[in-house]
Amino acid sequence: MDKKIARKCALILLKIRQKKPLIHHITNMVTANDNANVTLAIGASPVMALSKYEVEEMTAQADSLVLNLGTLNPDLIESCWLAGKVANQKGIPVILDPVGAGATQYRTSTAKKILSEMKIAIIRGNVGEMSALLDDPRFIKGVDAEVTGLSISDLAQEASKRYETVVAVTGKVDYISDGIHLISVYNGHPWLKILTGAGCMASSLCATFASVEEDHLMSTAAAIGFFGVCAEIAAKKVKGPGLFHQVLFDVIYNMDVETLVSSLQVEMK
Amino acid sequence: MDKKIARKCALILLKIRQKKPLIHHITNMVTANDNANVTLAIGASPVMALSKYEVEEMTAQADSLVLNLGTLNPDLIESCWLAGKVANQKGIPVILDPVGAGATQYRTSTAKKILSEMKIAIIRGNVGEMSALLDDPRFIKGVDAEVTGLSISDLAQEASKRYETVVAVTGKVDYISDGIHLISVYNGHPWLKILTGAGCMASSLCATFASVEEDHLMSTAAAIGFFGVCAEIAAKKVKGPGLFHQVLFDVIYNMDVETLVSSLQVEMK
Amino acid sequence: MDKKIARKCALILLKIRQKKPLIHHITNMVTANDNANVTLAIGASPVMALSKYEVEEMTAQADSLVLNLGTLNPDLIESCWLAGKVANQKGIPVILDPVGAGATQYRTSTAKKILSEMKIAIIRGNVGEMSALLDDPRFIKGVDAEVTGLSISDLAQEASKRYETVVAVTGKVDYISDGIHLISVYNGHPWLKILTGAGCMASSLCATFASVEEDHLMSTAAAIGFFGVCAEIAAKKVKGPGLFHQVLFDVIYNMDVETLVSSLQVEMK
Repeated sequence: MDKKIARKCALILLKIRQKKPLIHHITNMVTANDNANVTLAIGASPVMALSKYEVEEMTAQADSLVLNLGTLNPDLIESCWLAGKVANQKGIPVILDPVGAGATQYRTSTAKKILSEMKIAIIRGNVGEMSALLDDPRFIKGVDAEVTGLSISDLAQEASKRYETVVAVTGKVDYISDGIHLISVYNGHPWLKILTGAGCMASSLCATFASVEEDHLMSTAAAIGFFGVCAEIAAKKVKGPGLFHQVLFDVIYNMDVETLVSSLQVEMK
Repeated sequence: MDKKIARKCALILLKIRQKKPLIHHITNMVTANDNANVTLAIGASPVMALSKYEVEEMTAQADSLVLNLGTLNPDLIESCWLAGKVANQKGIPVILDPVGAGATQYRTSTAKKILSEMKIAIIRGNVGEMSALLDDPRFIKGVDAEVTGLSISDLAQEASKRYETVVAVTGKVDYISDGIHLISVYNGHPWLKILTGAGCMASSLCATFASVEEDHLMSTAAAIGFFGVCAEIAAKKVKGPGLFHQVLFDVIYNMDVETLVSSLQVEMK
Repeated sequence: MDKKIARKCALILLKIRQKKPLIHHITNMVTANDNANVTLAIGASPVMALSKYEVEEMTAQADSLVLNLGTLNPDLIESCWLAGKVANQKGIPVILDPVGAGATQYRTSTAKKILSEMKIAIIRGNVGEMSALLDDPRFIKGVDAEVTGLSISDLAQEASKRYETVVAVTGKVDYISDGIHLISVYNGHPWLKILTGAGCMASSLCATFASVEEDHLMSTAAAIGFFGVCAEIAAKKVKGPGLFHQVLFDVIYNMDVETLVSSLQVEMK
């Protein structure tokens, strides 16, 4: 099973570098630079347009769309709306990154509204964010919440069923589910937690992988696994999160299929 | 005297790493990424919410609040207002970074209005910004102004008295005053002047240190001293401001109490 | 001919470091940090003010003005307007970076409107952007368009004639024209294409060079050549676009006149 995902991951990587898909981002002002650079490093083309006067036209040219709620406001939400509609009509995948859901009502309700009125292909978030989207008393909400009672893998599966979408809950172990299957990714590095934008970059990669592979359970597991492998290798070369940030782009840029396949630690149940 | 501040600085650092305080930033689009990464590197949690629909709720969960006027606009000012009120009610420290005060009327008057209608725990700025806030003909205003007639330490003390707050005037030597005492910090490196966001990062650290230590004269001197020591060590490892930027985060992340205490050059009068 | 430009480039570099010109940017949220850091690295002072309530006052103090349309919106456009008028009245050069022109109508028409109602000293863009501004059926439009039929050097000259301004079309070879002369710059590195903000940084350097040298054909060729030389040297020191990003700032900061002059590969026709 592992080998199937590893092979898939390698094939998607080659496809991205060959096709150079265009990934449209409606994202936040804190990590937009990282969203763009991670997309470029892997071999795709990022584009960042935010205004309601152009997001439809830009989305119409894109191969996938990222909606990242990191610094949301009414204008940005309107643009998410317009872009999402075009993406849905065109049939390109929309990736939602519900940054900070659970931390404020505004974030939680915006993310839920997007999920209820738009077809989202993939949600990527941490435990706290995903718990907030579920609104299930069995899960504790909040940015740094730990799930009690139920496991994080249950959370991924529940969220996937509720929203009929692929869900990636990233953390020490990453769980990806389509409501039926569950993939665990054991790659990664603790420094991803002390680098702002690591989650946002993971979402950009999910969008990039999904733009060239229709099986979004597989593409998402591949994206998360790829990012985790790169983080592990980058971390070995440096002594802290600053250089790690930059070397991570170098490793992504230089990643070869052999290293990727031999380093991936994924498991499907 | 030096040793007291050095010990305090070490204790605050350990407290930050243990408590992992949440630092809410209302900040600018140029250096928001640096604000977040410096806060993470030292062991705290940054959060960046800008919209008036959520800043109150976010501030209510935070341990301190940074108001950074780097790219201000009416929406941002309204959010500063709302967040500041909550912070004052809750009793968490508010740190004002009056970026570019003196360069435009809009910046100067916004900073002054915030100071007149909100309780600010700490103001951190350079000589030009602080002079502008004083509006005192004895001090020359402007971004790159040099104070003539009076010394920079006088400026720190005057500003502190005027606004009844702790003031840090950063530059070649940094001066921190509560209107009565004056602390001089001799640590630092010239490259901090050719790295955008160095001042903003210093303000994030002031907010982080203040979130775990009630004596804000001490916490601010400790934050500024800590940043200066890290800059000195980072500068020795690189050849220019680009890698310095990233290695600075690594040094902050790895700083140990012994190195910190032995490197601090602070003096209280 | 080459030597004349090389000497000019060296002289401008020295002048920048001596005068420390103030470069006002109205720019985008993705690469604003890079705009600021490249301006600081070369020895100038960047300033980033966006609000209509202050851009006029800020521009009045600046030595040149960058209008970068990377993440444009109605507020930003209004600020471009106000700042541009002041810059024209004051006689300081205005540099337009029409990011993404051709990708959406909003971008194309905004760039054209700015060009028709304001005196622009220099336009810097890639082939796709510049083609879109020409609206000439002989040139194919679009972000990644290749020019067919006519050469890129023709494009630079046509755009320069049409808009009566210096034009820099950057790519594998960079072409700079004032409508009469054409300068080709052969310096550069492919990684500039996989680093977001490389074009934006080139525009900041064009503005910085133009702020101290009235011959904008020469100043622009010098800026583009300088950036290309620095990219070549930086690329040799690293293995990917992440560290390249930071080392580029180090190389810019440390560039000496001898290395610059001996490395420039420029040609005037």
